[in-house]
Amino acid sequence: MPRCRQLFLDAGLSGRDMAKKDGRVIPEAQGVLAGAVYLCLLFAFIPLPFADAMLNNPVDFPHADFVLFITALLCVCCMLFLGFADDALNLRWLVKLVLPCVASLPLLMVYYVNRGWTRVVVPLPLRPLLGVESCELGPLYYAYMGMLAVFCTNAINIYAGVNGLESGQSLLIAGSLVVFNALEAGGEFAYWHRLSLHLLLPYVGVCAALYRFNRYPAQVFVGDTFCYFSGMLFAVAGILGHYSKTLLLFQLPQVANFALSMPQLFRLVPCPRHRLPRFDPAKDQLQPSTVEFCPARLSLLGRLCYLVASRILAPLRLVACKVELHDGEERASMTNLTLINAALVLFGPMHEAKLTRLLLALQIACTALAFAVRYPVARLFYGA
Amino acid sequence: MPRCRQLFLDAGLSGRDMAKKDGRVIPEAQGVLAGAVYLCLLFAFIPLPFADAMLNNPVDFPHADFVLFITALLCVCCMLFLGFADDALNLRWLVKLVLPCVASLPLLMVYYVNRGWTRVVVPLPLRPLLGVESCELGPLYYAYMGMLAVFCTNAINIYAGVNGLESGQSLLIAGSLVVFNALEAGGEFAYWHRLSLHLLLPYVGVCAALYRFNRYPAQVFVGDTFCYFSGMLFAVAGILGHYSKTLLLFQLPQVANFALSMPQLFRLVPCPRHRLPRFDPAKDQLQPSTVEFCPARLSLLGRLCYLVASRILAPLRLVACKVELHDGEERASMTNLTLINAALVLFGPMHEAKLTRLLLALQIACTALAFAVRYPVARLFYGA
Repeated sequence: MPRCRQLFLDAGLSGRDMAKKDGRVIPEAQGVLAGAVYLCLLFAFIPLPFADAMLNNPVDFPHADFVLFITALLCVCCMLFLGFADDALNLRWLVKLVLPCVASLPLLMVYYVNRGWTRVVVPLPLRPLLGVESCELGPLYYAYMGMLAVFCTNAINIYAGVNGLESGQSLLIAGSLVVFNALEAGGEFAYWHRLSLHLLLPYVGVCAALYRFNRYPAQVFVGDTFCYFSGMLFAVAGILGHYSKTLLLFQLPQVANFALSMPQLFRLVPCPRHRLPRFDPAKDQLQPSTVEFCPARLSLLGRLCYLVASRILAPLRLVACKVELHDGEERASMTNLTLINAALVLFGPMHEAKLTRLLLALQIACTALAFAVRYPVARLFYGA
Repeated sequence: MPRCRQLFLDAGLSGRDMAKKDGRVIPEAQGVLAGAVYLCLLFAFIPLPFADAMLNNPVDFPHADFVLFITALLCVCCMLFLGFADDALNLRWLVKLVLPCVASLPLLMVYYVNRGWTRVVVPLPLRPLLGVESCELGPLYYAYMGMLAVFCTNAINIYAGVNGLESGQSLLIAGSLVVFNALEAGGEFAYWHRLSLHLLLPYVGVCAALYRFNRYPAQVFVGDTFCYFSGMLFAVAGILGHYSKTLLLFQLPQVANFALSMPQLFRLVPCPRHRLPRFDPAKDQLQPSTVEFCPARLSLLGRLCYLVASRILAPLRLVACKVELHDGEERASMTNLTLINAALVLFGPMHEAKLTRLLLALQIACTALAFAVRYPVARLFYGA
């Protein structure tokens, strides 16, 4: 990465670190290096998971499993391509939603061709109500998988902007998934979890390398490429490993950040171009960034969101809201609706490195919670 | 493409058209749009070639064929990604050789896993000498396929630089391959040729669209992305269709250009940064570009190349060579060794549009020759 620094700067793939006193210029989109190394590694080791079948059982080669693996690589490669195109070309907002749909198409197609499961098990408490043990979702399940891909690819991208957060959270999620898959790799669905491990372990390696250079003080930015690449990899691993619900459990902070961000993402409440925390050079601290608007001029849904933010989230200290009269009109100044700003409101302004540590600690706590939910609590809902 | 013009200009992906009086700035790397559309098309139609098997014979689904198709997409997608990275980052020369190797890895791996043929038929005249009808090449065949991918991806890239030539030649090659595959699609190896058609037909579509904007006067440049993408697609179609030798027949001008360029590519003779023809604004014509060097200072191999160029190619009017005495030392001024310059030496300086037409006519003539060789002549060598 340090060797490629100049290459990226020359190509104009660079950005200013707004949370440093010198506003230093740092190469952007270095996640593409991690992605390219990841692809090369997986290409080189394509025969590995199938070595046994190739050597001992060539007639009965598991082509159906093999095609799933190749498709996983295709989706990841496609997302890397589209992510890098986004970094280089600054594509529009709408495209960011369409890209993961396109990239996940092969996965859905192959899932369909391979007659993958579209049946979900109904939780125990609901079974008497519905009168069935499992429910065939059909096309709805494909829609769910597509939406999962869109969510995962964007979830990391919108929970970003502090040195080391993108790579750190990805590393923690991948690590949790590795532990989960390792626990399950001896069980009933061993093949799926081993496939998932095969995809995730090299990722942990490249992601750790990226974290080393991305953590405070950042020498590189990871770019949209990395966020898309990571998200798609998680989605692919979750879908092919048949643990997409567990995957969401391991992404609790991302889900919370997405839920919190929704009013701004869907433009119900005004959304500035950047929602990063504001840098206070005098104290070398980050402060929550704010957005100003007139609540009375919002749409009905927007006013509802504002009401929830000011009456429920503000007392919980997840949002700070100030109202002033301006030419007889009420003007609100509200902190931007992200988990990062919520942490700064709750714990007060703090140094960037401390903020990243705090957010990564939250990720670890959520992982512990996820394991608690996945094993003991899931047994209550689904039985042994 | 015209709609994305500003996007590419803003991202700094643009270049000056050196063969125009106003030296206008034109968006570069627009081949990435063609490639992205191609990928989306193929993703959407993944189930199409397998619809019959899915509906009528789900138990005996041809997974082995299916994996070949997905792998073809993976290679093409990977090359698109790497090609675009090259356009955006201006990677070094060596990387241009390594990239196609990396991108073709999955193909070779899957070919291996699927136990593809590595046996070649020995031509009739050689059979009495070797005493065998066919010969098992084993790993050598994999090396050959890898080299084919490297050749194809670079062949178009080094036979470029005149408005419409990159997209025009690709369109003609793809068209020839489509005709060839259509002729063979009813024969013994129908599945392979149909797979190849399935890959090539959408390509003809996107390539025609690109040609429309790339022909003289060019509104867009195609970029390395497109050259790599096209080359890899041809290689993949040729390898999976098992007609890699025929593929080279359809690329005769590219092979000739590569052979002619070798002394400069391998730096035996000095190679300037650009070998494009020189533009003469007064006459609005292109003239062959030249390179100057002292023959006596070349390596032994370099002097041999110079000897061949000045004693054999110069009388054939494929190269123009002038020698002057400079401070008692011989200085040679030789036209750059490309097919484009050779055409300009042979037929004299001409307008850019006329040059493209001439070179594309040569491509068509070579295609006709290829069909003549493929069918009547091949029968002489391989029997019916």
